[in-house]
Amino acid sequence: MNTIANIPNTQKERVIILGGGFAGLRLARKLSQKAFQVVLLDRNNFHVFQPLFYQVATSGLEPAAISFPLRKVFQKQTNVHIRVAEVQGVDPENRQVQTSIGYLDYDYLVMALGADTNYFGNENIRRHAIPMKSLNEAINLRNKILENYELALNETDRDRAASMMNFIIVGGGPTGVELAGALAEMKNFILPKDYPELDFSLMKVQLLEAGPTILAGYSEKSSNRAKAYLEKLGVEVRTQTMVQDYDGYEISLRDASPLYAHTMIWAAGVKANTVQGIPEEALGRNDRLIVNSFNEVKGLDRIFSIGDMAYMETSEAPNGHPQVAQVAMQQASNLYNNFLRVKKGKKRKAFKYIDKGSMATVGRHLAVADLPAGIWLGGAPAWMLWLFIHLMALVGVKNRLFVFLNWAVSYFTYDQSLRLLIRQSNKPEIPQIAVEIEA
Amino acid sequence: MNTIANIPNTQKERVIILGGGFAGLRLARKLSQKAFQVVLLDRNNFHVFQPLFYQVATSGLEPAAISFPLRKVFQKQTNVHIRVAEVQGVDPENRQVQTSIGYLDYDYLVMALGADTNYFGNENIRRHAIPMKSLNEAINLRNKILENYELALNETDRDRAASMMNFIIVGGGPTGVELAGALAEMKNFILPKDYPELDFSLMKVQLLEAGPTILAGYSEKSSNRAKAYLEKLGVEVRTQTMVQDYDGYEISLRDASPLYAHTMIWAAGVKANTVQGIPEEALGRNDRLIVNSFNEVKGLDRIFSIGDMAYMETSEAPNGHPQVAQVAMQQASNLYNNFLRVKKGKKRKAFKYIDKGSMATVGRHLAVADLPAGIWLGGAPAWMLWLFIHLMALVGVKNRLFVFLNWAVSYFTYDQSLRLLIRQSNKPEIPQIAVEIEA
Repeated sequence: MNTIANIPNTQKERVIILGGGFAGLRLARKLSQKAFQVVLLDRNNFHVFQPLFYQVATSGLEPAAISFPLRKVFQKQTNVHIRVAEVQGVDPENRQVQTSIGYLDYDYLVMALGADTNYFGNENIRRHAIPMKSLNEAINLRNKILENYELALNETDRDRAASMMNFIIVGGGPTGVELAGALAEMKNFILPKDYPELDFSLMKVQLLEAGPTILAGYSEKSSNRAKAYLEKLGVEVRTQTMVQDYDGYEISLRDASPLYAHTMIWAAGVKANTVQGIPEEALGRNDRLIVNSFNEVKGLDRIFSIGDMAYMETSEAPNGHPQVAQVAMQQASNLYNNFLRVKKGKKRKAFKYIDKGSMATVGRHLAVADLPAGIWLGGAPAWMLWLFIHLMALVGVKNRLFVFLNWAVSYFTYDQSLRLLIRQSNKPEIPQIAVEIEA
Repeated sequence: MNTIANIPNTQKERVIILGGGFAGLRLARKLSQKAFQVVLLDRNNFHVFQPLFYQVATSGLEPAAISFPLRKVFQKQTNVHIRVAEVQGVDPENRQVQTSIGYLDYDYLVMALGADTNYFGNENIRRHAIPMKSLNEAINLRNKILENYELALNETDRDRAASMMNFIIVGGGPTGVELAGALAEMKNFILPKDYPELDFSLMKVQLLEAGPTILAGYSEKSSNRAKAYLEKLGVEVRTQTMVQDYDGYEISLRDASPLYAHTMIWAAGVKANTVQGIPEEALGRNDRLIVNSFNEVKGLDRIFSIGDMAYMETSEAPNGHPQVAQVAMQQASNLYNNFLRVKKGKKRKAFKYIDKGSMATVGRHLAVADLPAGIWLGGAPAWMLWLFIHLMALVGVKNRLFVFLNWAVSYFTYDQSLRLLIRQSNKPEIPQIAVEIEA
C-alpha cells in the first residue's frame, strides 16, 4: 500500500479527521483557520443532515436538499485536504491510518465515524428490514415504499395487497416517531389520491416499541403527547412489543400474533461504526469508543473520538451522552479549544454538555419539545420551533431556501411531490481503472 | 403468464400506451377526458424532461426538478390505469401486449417508447463511453465526473491525472453542444475552486463531430455562432473527427492522434427502442417504426407509433421528422383528434408538423435560435428565450419554481451546488417476493 498521494508534508502538525458528519465537519472547519494541516476523510463527498432523513424517505425532501458538498465548505482553505475514501484500519503504534486509497501518518487522529443500525445480531431482520442511517438507505426506503405500492396494484389477494401497503416501524425513539407520523400523513393525504385503485381501509401504520413508552428519555408529558398525536393521525402505537423475527413478510412478535408487512423499518437501535486496529479494551457499549473527558480514546495516544462514536461517562451522563448532533458539535468545539490550549501551553478543559433540549415532530402542527429550565411546548408552537431550528441548522443558504420552499409547498398543497422511483443502475461492465471509490 | 391484475374490463375501448414521455403523456392526458379506458405503461413511475438531462449531469439541477410523478398527473382520472412495467413484446394477431407484470388485451395500441443511444455496433464504446438518454444515465455521468476528479487527486502521474480531468464529448448535435458548454463552465467557474490541488492547465474539453459542422440541420449562422461561443468558453471544437475506438482511457480517432480521457460522453446518435413481435418490414432507419401519416405502423392493424420511435416520410420531411419533443407532442395531439374523428364517423386528418424552430444553449448569455419566418436570435436574447421556453415546458408549477430558483442561484453565484456523489447501493440480499420491478 502506498501513502495517500499529493498530501504535502509541511511544518504544520497533521490532524486526520475520519468522518464529515456533525462532529468531524465542525472540527475541520474550526481547525481550517489555524496552524494545522487538516486531512478530512469521508466515504462520501458531502456532509448530510441526518435529522431529516425521514423526510427524504417519505418523498418530502430531495436528497440534495439535505446534503452539502464538503469541498464547497473548504474552497478557500489551502491547509485542508479532503479525500473520498473508506477507512480500513488504524495503526496506533506507527501513528498511521489505512484507507482504500493508501495510508497516511498523523500527528493527531480524530475518529468521528458515527453510528450505524444495530440489528442486535438478528440476521433475518438485517436482511429484510429497512434501515435509515444513511442517505442511500433513506432513498432505498422511498423506493421500497413506492415499489410495494406498485406491487399491490398487481396483487389479487387482499391480504397480500394489504401487507404491501402496511408500514411497520420498529423503535419508538425520535426517528421512529417522526417516520411513523410522516408515513401516516402519506396515508391520510397522498397515497389514496395516487392509488385510487387500492383499498386503503386495509392499510395499517404501526409503531412498535419494546420498552414501556415511546420517546424514552424525553419528559413523560412529551411521551404521552407524542403518542396521542400519532394516534390522532391513525398510527397504532404498541409499546412493550418486541419483534423477534422477520422474513420480509411475516413479523413475529413476542407474546402477540404476527403482523404482515412488506415494509418494516428498523429504527430500534444503533451501534458505533468500528475500525480495525482499535484494541478491544477501548470498546464500550454498542461498540462506542470509551473516551475520557478530553475525548481521548482509552489507552491510545493522540487518538480522539467525538460524536456518536464516542462514549464518555461523566457524573452528568452516567450512561454516556445521547447520540445527537448537539453533543457531536459541542465535543468538536471543546476538542478544538483543547488543541489550541495545548499549543499555548495551557491546561485542557473537560467536556461539559449543555443540554439545549429535545424535540420530535409528529406531523403538521404536531410536535413536542422539552426545553431547558423545564419549559415544555406542544402542538403548533413546538412544530414551528422545530421547523425553525432544523432550517437554521442546515449547511448552506441555498439548502435552507430549498427546504423552506419544499415545506411551504407541501404545507399548502398537502402534497409531497417527490414520489419518484429512481433506482440507480450502474453499467456493471465498466472496469474501474484506478482505485475504486464507493460512496 | 397472467393477465395484468385489477384492470377492469369495461364497455369502453381500451387504449394501451407504451411510454410516458412527451408523446405518451400528452396522448394519455387528452384521452383521459374521453370515453376510452387508458392503460399507460412505463418502466418508471415518472415523466422526465429530457432536454435538461445535461444540467443534471453537470450538477446544475436535481433529478427531481425535471421529473414528475405520473400518478400525480392522473389523480382524478378513474379511466386511466398506470402500471410500472417493462414491455416485453407485442402480439398483433391476438391484440395483446406482454409485460413484466403480465399480458393485456388492447383495442388500440400506441407505441411511444422513444429512442436510446446508438453505438453503431461498437461494443468497446458501448462499454466505456457514457450515454445520456435516461435520468439514470445523467446521474451516472454526474457521478463519473466527480469520481474521476477524486481519482485525479490520488494520481501522481501528470498525464494520467489530466486524462481523469478531461471531458471528451462525441456528437455535435444540440445535446453535445449543450453538454460541452456546461462542462466548460464547470471548468471555468467551479472545478478549480473545488480542487485547488489540481493543475487545470492540463485539462481539456473537446467536442468531436464526424460531420463538417456542429448543429447540423440548424441554420449556418447558428452552427457558426455556436462554435464561436464554445470556443469562447474554452471548448476545442473538432469537426470531421471520427472516433473509432475507446478503452476507457485512449480514444482512437480516424486520421488523427489519439486522445486520453476517463470521461468520454457519447451523444453521437440514437436508435429507436425495439419491441419483440414487430415484423421486420415495419422497421425503418435506426429501428424506427415506419408509420403512415396517421401514425399507423406499417402493415399492422390498430397499432400506432408516435414520437422519437416513429418514422414518417412525407413531402415536408423526406427523411422523417426530427426526434424532438415538438414532433412528439404534435403527433400525440393529432392522433388524439383522429381517435375522436373516428368515433364520430369523420375522416381522419394526416399529421402536419408545425416547426416552431430550433434552439441550443451554450452557456451564460450564449445561445442560438432559429425561429419561424427566418428570424434568428443569438447571445443573451436567445439565451433568455431558451430559459423561458424550457421553464414553461416543464410539467408542474413546483418544478418550474425550483428549476427557476436553481438557475437564479447559479446565475448569481456562478456555482452549481449539487456536486454530490450519491451512488445508490441496494441491499443485494433482499429477495423480491412478488413480481420484480426494475426502474
